[in-house]
Amino acid sequence: MRYELYYWPTIQGRGEFVRLALEAAGADYVDVARKNMQAMLDVLEDPKLARPPFAPPFLRAGRLLIAQTANILHFLGPRLGLSPRAESSRLWLHQLQLTVEDLIVDVHDTHHPVGAHLYYEDQQREAKRRSAYFTGERAAELLGYFERVLAANTTGRGHMAGRALTYVDLSMFQVIAGLRYAFPRMMRRLEPSIPGLITLHDRIARRPEIAAYLDSDRRIPFNEDGIFRHYPGLDG
Amino acid sequence: MRYELYYWPTIQGRGEFVRLALEAAGADYVDVARKNMQAMLDVLEDPKLARPPFAPPFLRAGRLLIAQTANILHFLGPRLGLSPRAESSRLWLHQLQLTVEDLIVDVHDTHHPVGAHLYYEDQQREAKRRSAYFTGERAAELLGYFERVLAANTTGRGHMAGRALTYVDLSMFQVIAGLRYAFPRMMRRLEPSIPGLITLHDRIARRPEIAAYLDSDRRIPFNEDGIFRHYPGLDG
Repeated sequence: MRYELYYWPTIQGRGEFVRLALEAAGADYVDVARKNMQAMLDVLEDPKLARPPFAPPFLRAGRLLIAQTANILHFLGPRLGLSPRAESSRLWLHQLQLTVEDLIVDVHDTHHPVGAHLYYEDQQREAKRRSAYFTGERAAELLGYFERVLAANTTGRGHMAGRALTYVDLSMFQVIAGLRYAFPRMMRRLEPSIPGLITLHDRIARRPEIAAYLDSDRRIPFNEDGIFRHYPGLDG
Repeated sequence: MRYELYYWPTIQGRGEFVRLALEAAGADYVDVARKNMQAMLDVLEDPKLARPPFAPPFLRAGRLLIAQTANILHFLGPRLGLSPRAESSRLWLHQLQLTVEDLIVDVHDTHHPVGAHLYYEDQQREAKRRSAYFTGERAAELLGYFERVLAANTTGRGHMAGRALTYVDLSMFQVIAGLRYAFPRMMRRLEPSIPGLITLHDRIARRPEIAAYLDSDRRIPFNEDGIFRHYPGLDG
């Protein structure tokens, strides 16, 4: 099965969670919009689609067109060997991924608290207030939760869930990498309290498939158009 | 199976999407925290839980403890007869519910753009800006999408997906009811452009199980502690 991923071609954004899963599994996939942006817009603007996506990312898998990041990963998990097949395990992984999504919204809103329709420069004052909440309180709350989940997984030490690598491990790697890029000062303060997540991040980065991907031009660098943006004034 | 729902006892909030599904299906369930708030806090604070929820709502179903609203509905759907069983249909319903969640975050942020740690009164200035975006642009975008999905469902006219009632129909009812409560002026302006969703809302409200629920004291009234809050100054 050749998968077609559709996502904005110049940012990691939400699409990166899907890219990491496809890369870690060595899946056969095309990152469509990086070669042909119009192909993505054509899907978004197709009035005849019976099941239209609201926004990227979306994935074409044979006749299926699936949107919403966590939904895509829920679908791909068992197919890529990145999730157990048992329903209870899949629900738990999905629950964790949805909590990652909550964190992603919080990160996005640090630089866009008024709305995505305005540039950051036009909401800087509000961004400063929102970021103070994120760096001072909310990030510690969410990362503390994930650290607790990791520690509570006694069946597979070092994984977020179960005995083997799952897409949630990859998502935690991306969260730590992104937070380090966007909020280096905050992370220097928080990292001592989340040693398990830091170890997990480092171990994922060393996996051959992931190391090769991070080294390739398929990995778009972090930048100030994505979700994780480095604005020193917002970093605590 | 007797389900146990755990959610804040004085607001509709995210729990309401689960309550509506349980009520529409005539399921055997207990809204635990409305009788015993401490029982919910006990779960949230239990250090021994292997799969802890990050926040309410969560559902106990036999030995399973499931959190994240959309995840709970994904689980309950086929069990309550509120979702087809085919995987492709379940993914589509779930995708729609996750887009409802996006709308819910947008609504919450109209009154809490700086963060949930502060009272509305302490972020009124930012709330006014964020609400102007929501009432002027974002709400029409999201409702327009759902109206388009409804119109594109030619297999079961009048339902969001498929031929029969699903939890997404119930969620759309709640979205319309909530937006009417919180933003009556905006809705008077927008409703002519979403006739299908309004008809769907009215039809759901007339279903005997839902009508009986809305009439009972199990339905918590909308109020200014929930997600849909009526602050006239934010209503466009």
